[in-house]
Amino acid sequence: MTNEQIQSCIEECMSCMLACNNCYVACLKEEDLNMMRECIRLDRECADICGFAAQAMSTGSQYMKEICQICAETCDLCATECEKHHHDHCQRCAAACSACAKACRAMIA
Amino acid sequence: MTNEQIQSCIEECMSCMLACNNCYVACLKEEDLNMMRECIRLDRECADICGFAAQAMSTGSQYMKEICQICAETCDLCATECEKHHHDHCQRCAAACSACAKACRAMIA
Amino acid sequence: MTNEQIQSCIEECMSCMLACNNCYVACLKEEDLNMMRECIRLDRECADICGFAAQAMSTGSQYMKEICQICAETCDLCATECEKHHHDHCQRCAAACSACAKACRAMIA
Amino acid sequence: MTNEQIQSCIEECMSCMLACNNCYVACLKEEDLNMMRECIRLDRECADICGFAAQAMSTGSQYMKEICQICAETCDLCATECEKHHHDHCQRCAAACSACAKACRAMIA
Repeated sequence: MTNEQIQSCIEECMSCMLACNNCYVACLKEEDLNMMRECIRLDRECADICGFAAQAMSTGSQYMKEICQICAETCDLCATECEKHHHDHCQRCAAACSACAKACRAMIA
Repeated sequence: MTNEQIQSCIEECMSCMLACNNCYVACLKEEDLNMMRECIRLDRECADICGFAAQAMSTGSQYMKEICQICAETCDLCATECEKHHHDHCQRCAAACSACAKACRAMIA
Repeated sequence: MTNEQIQSCIEECMSCMLACNNCYVACLKEEDLNMMRECIRLDRECADICGFAAQAMSTGSQYMKEICQICAETCDLCATECEKHHHDHCQRCAAACSACAKACRAMIA
Repeated sequence: MTNEQIQSCIEECMSCMLACNNCYVACLKEEDLNMMRECIRLDRECADICGFAAQAMSTGSQYMKEICQICAETCDLCATECEKHHHDHCQRCAAACSACAKACRAMIA
């Protein structure tokens, strides 16, 4: 992994954290809340691991690869869930999650 | 503030974080999700500031008092919301939030 | 406070978190570690509150102003300490802290 | 994994986070700072993953096992480093790390 890959991965993790938190806040205001349960749960789980991965990479953690592996898998789950919903915030979140998963896997490879 | 007050406040913040996260997970599974919107939101907001306050106190942050002041106020909001709901997890969360708010104010005083 | 101010403040908090963590890692490798004690401590304290403030703003916390007030004050302390040292990482960190403190205060005003 | 194992693991992670942060603060005040570099770094890395693991378990994360695996390995590294130093805070931290690593592995098994 190069410094450029780590830097790019940090940027994507932070963008994804913001998109997930934005989606979480918006989901909690949706009229049909019942179908957003899993989206709410995964938004926060994904935001939390993205924030943690950014911190781990920027502090030079010895386990940054393993943490980014979990981050990539959580992003996949969150993207798959968000893609089911037509809301703009879900579509934007799905795109951010996919980009973050890709950056994590590029860093790990 | 004494070391005993700080230690006690750390313990209450960590207990409160767990009770809030437990309530958050259980709220997301409740049948009538519509009335749990604010409870879900405040559970996570309260869990996050409690976890941050415990970290700030245990790392000797210069702003631990100011952080615990925000923690106490967030606990008050979360306790007031949780008390509205008859679910066991909400009642337990309300009790943990009240105890945490009290410990934060004892530490600050 | 406008959405633009919040968004700008989130960006500055995340940039500052990265600069502080970078300075922290680099300080721990400096030959004369003795004079870096306070810089190491404040780097992590500042990185932690910056990360927490970014999360609080992106989740729409009711106490985002109070949290950003503490963030601004911590940034001031960290900038003042970092300015004492000639290392590039300290100078870059001081600049990021000053920018972040300014963005926090613009958001609060 | 049983609820009792998860609960016990959460408790050990939170105790370990406190011991690591306590050791971190104390290390930064030691006279011979040069030999504490790695201890300072690992204390914070371990405290961070312990706090994150406690949050992940209490929010029912789908990746709690994978996170606790990283936590156990980080605890091993921190325990090995702390055992090298005769300071009370290092010895207490080493014991907390070993207990936490054991609880994480019991939860995963």
